[in-house]
Amino acid sequence: MTDDPAPIPTSVSEAAQRWLAQPRQTGDIPAHDDVDGWRRMIAQADEGICARFGGIELPVTVAETEVAGVPTFVIHGPEVTDPDALPLYLYVHGGGLIMGAGEACRLMSSAAALGAGLPTYAPDYRMPPDHPYPASLDDLMAVYRALLALRSPDRLFVGGASAGGNLAAALLLRALHEGLPMPAGLVLQTPEVDLTESGDSFVTNAGFDNVLGSLMHANLLYANEVDLAHPYLSPLFADPGDLARFPPTFLQAGTRDLYLSNTVRMHRALRAAGVEAELHVWEAMPHGGFGGAPEDIEVMTETRRFLDAHRT
Amino acid sequence: MTDDPAPIPTSVSEAAQRWLAQPRQTGDIPAHDDVDGWRRMIAQADEGICARFGGIELPVTVAETEVAGVPTFVIHGPEVTDPDALPLYLYVHGGGLIMGAGEACRLMSSAAALGAGLPTYAPDYRMPPDHPYPASLDDLMAVYRALLALRSPDRLFVGGASAGGNLAAALLLRALHEGLPMPAGLVLQTPEVDLTESGDSFVTNAGFDNVLGSLMHANLLYANEVDLAHPYLSPLFADPGDLARFPPTFLQAGTRDLYLSNTVRMHRALRAAGVEAELHVWEAMPHGGFGGAPEDIEVMTETRRFLDAHRT
Repeated sequence: MTDDPAPIPTSVSEAAQRWLAQPRQTGDIPAHDDVDGWRRMIAQADEGICARFGGIELPVTVAETEVAGVPTFVIHGPEVTDPDALPLYLYVHGGGLIMGAGEACRLMSSAAALGAGLPTYAPDYRMPPDHPYPASLDDLMAVYRALLALRSPDRLFVGGASAGGNLAAALLLRALHEGLPMPAGLVLQTPEVDLTESGDSFVTNAGFDNVLGSLMHANLLYANEVDLAHPYLSPLFADPGDLARFPPTFLQAGTRDLYLSNTVRMHRALRAAGVEAELHVWEAMPHGGFGGAPEDIEVMTETRRFLDAHRT
Repeated sequence: MTDDPAPIPTSVSEAAQRWLAQPRQTGDIPAHDDVDGWRRMIAQADEGICARFGGIELPVTVAETEVAGVPTFVIHGPEVTDPDALPLYLYVHGGGLIMGAGEACRLMSSAAALGAGLPTYAPDYRMPPDHPYPASLDDLMAVYRALLALRSPDRLFVGGASAGGNLAAALLLRALHEGLPMPAGLVLQTPEVDLTESGDSFVTNAGFDNVLGSLMHANLLYANEVDLAHPYLSPLFADPGDLARFPPTFLQAGTRDLYLSNTVRMHRALRAAGVEAELHVWEAMPHGGFGGAPEDIEVMTETRRFLDAHRT
C-alpha cells in the first residue's frame, strides 16, 4: 500500500526483528523468452539461497543418488542410526518453481531432514527454463512411485515449503488420479498453492513481507501456456472430492507472509473436505521464516511433532 | 498505512465482499473522565450491536435470571430438548469491555448458544464507566463457581468473542489461582487478549480491518489505573506454567483481523505450554466476521465440532 518501510514489531525475538529490518531484495525480471537471462537470474538467486542456508554445515549424512532416474539427495541427521527401520520423508525443495536446484536443493533439504528426524529423499527435479510443467511433477511422481516400493504408504510422508508445497500437494492430487495410495501425512509450509495469486494477502502483505513479492513471471514460465488455475498447477483449486482423500496435513505460515492467504485458504479447503488439517501461524513472520531465529526452531519443533504423531 | 480504501478481494463469498465494502465506522471518543459522554457513546454503540444482531429473531428459548447475584441470560436452541442432561456453555459477550450489555448481550449470546447447541449461560456482567476492572471478572468468577455446582468441570465449556475472549481467558487464569478446576474446553474467537495492543497486526491490518480500530481508550477506562499488561487484563502475558494447565482451546481469527496477532500469539503461547490448541483463520475476514456470510456459518460449524469433540 506504501513504499515506506514497514515498522519493526517488538512482539518477536530480536533475531526476528533484525531479519525484518532488511529490505526486500528485488531484481530485474528477464523477458519471457530470454532463456539466457532466466539462466543468469536463476544462477544468481541460487547463490543467494546457498548463502542463506550454507552458513552452518549441518550434521547430516548425504548420499547423491538417482531414484527412478531422478537425481536425488538422500539425507539423514545423526539421530537416524537405522534408516531402514524408519518411515521416509519425500521433501520437495522450494524456489519459485524455477530456482533451488543442485547445491541449493541439498542445503534446504538438509535443514528439512534434520528437523524431520527421518531419512529424507530430496529430488533435484527438472525445472524451467529448459523443463517447464509438467517435468517437475513427472519427476516427483517417479520418485513417489519408487518410494512406495520401499515402504508401505502409511510409512511415507510428503512435504515441501513454498513452491515445494505447491508440488507436494499437486503430487498427491496426481497420485490420487493415477490410483496410488496416499502417504501418512502432508507438510505444507507457506505453500505456493495458487499460481494465479488470487489471495487477499498478495495485496495486504505486499508492503510487509520483506522476503517475497509476486512470482507471476516465474509462474508463467513454469506453466508454459497451461492454465494457471488447473489443480495440478494450483492445488488450492482441487476438486473437494479429491481433497477429501488427502492425508492429515500440517500447514504453516506467518502473519506478514505473502502466502498467508494461500495457507489459510488451503487449510479451510481441506477442513471443508473433512480432512484432519492443522494450521500454525507465526507472529509477524514473512515468507519462509526469520532466517534462523528462535521462532524458526519453533516451526521445526511443531512440524516434527506432527510427523511423530502420524508415524507408525 | 494509507487512507485509500482497501481493495475488495474476490477470494471470499459475495456476501463477504459486500461486508468488506462498508467503510469502518468511527466516532468521537469521550474524555477519560467524561462519564456522561461514555454513557452516550456506549448507548449508541449498543444500538449498533442490536441493529447488527437483531435483524433475525433466532429460534432460541431465553430465561432472564440471576446466577450468584449476576443477571444472566440462560439460552438454548430448539435442538436442546433436555437441558439438564447436557454440558453447559458459559459464554462471555464481547463489546470492547465497555459495551454489549442488556439486549445486546442477549442477541450476541443467542447466536452463540444456537451455534454451540448447548444450554448457554451469558452473564450480563458489570462494566465501565461505573464498574471498571475487576468488576466484570468478579461477576464471571461468581457465575463460574455457581456453574461448577451444577456440572462437573468436564461438562462445562467457557468461551467468548473479542472482549469476551479476554474475559474468558482471564477467568480461567483467576480460577486456576483460586484453586478451581478447569472446564472441558475454551473457545477464543478473535480474542482481545492483549490490552497493550502490542501485536503486529495492530499495525499491518489497521488499514484493512473495516470493523475495528484501536480500543486503547476503552482499555484504559476498563483498567482504571491497573497495569494493562497484568495477565488478568492481558491473558496473553500469563505465566507459561499457568497456561500449561489450560484445557483444550479453540482459536479463530481472520487475515484482515486487527486481532490476528492476538489470536496467533495466544495460540503459540498455548502450544509452547503444551496445550492442545487449534487455530482457524479465515481469508480476508475482519474482526468478528462478515456479518452473516457463508464464512460465518463455517466459523460456527468449526466451533461446534470442537465443542462436540470435547463433550462427555
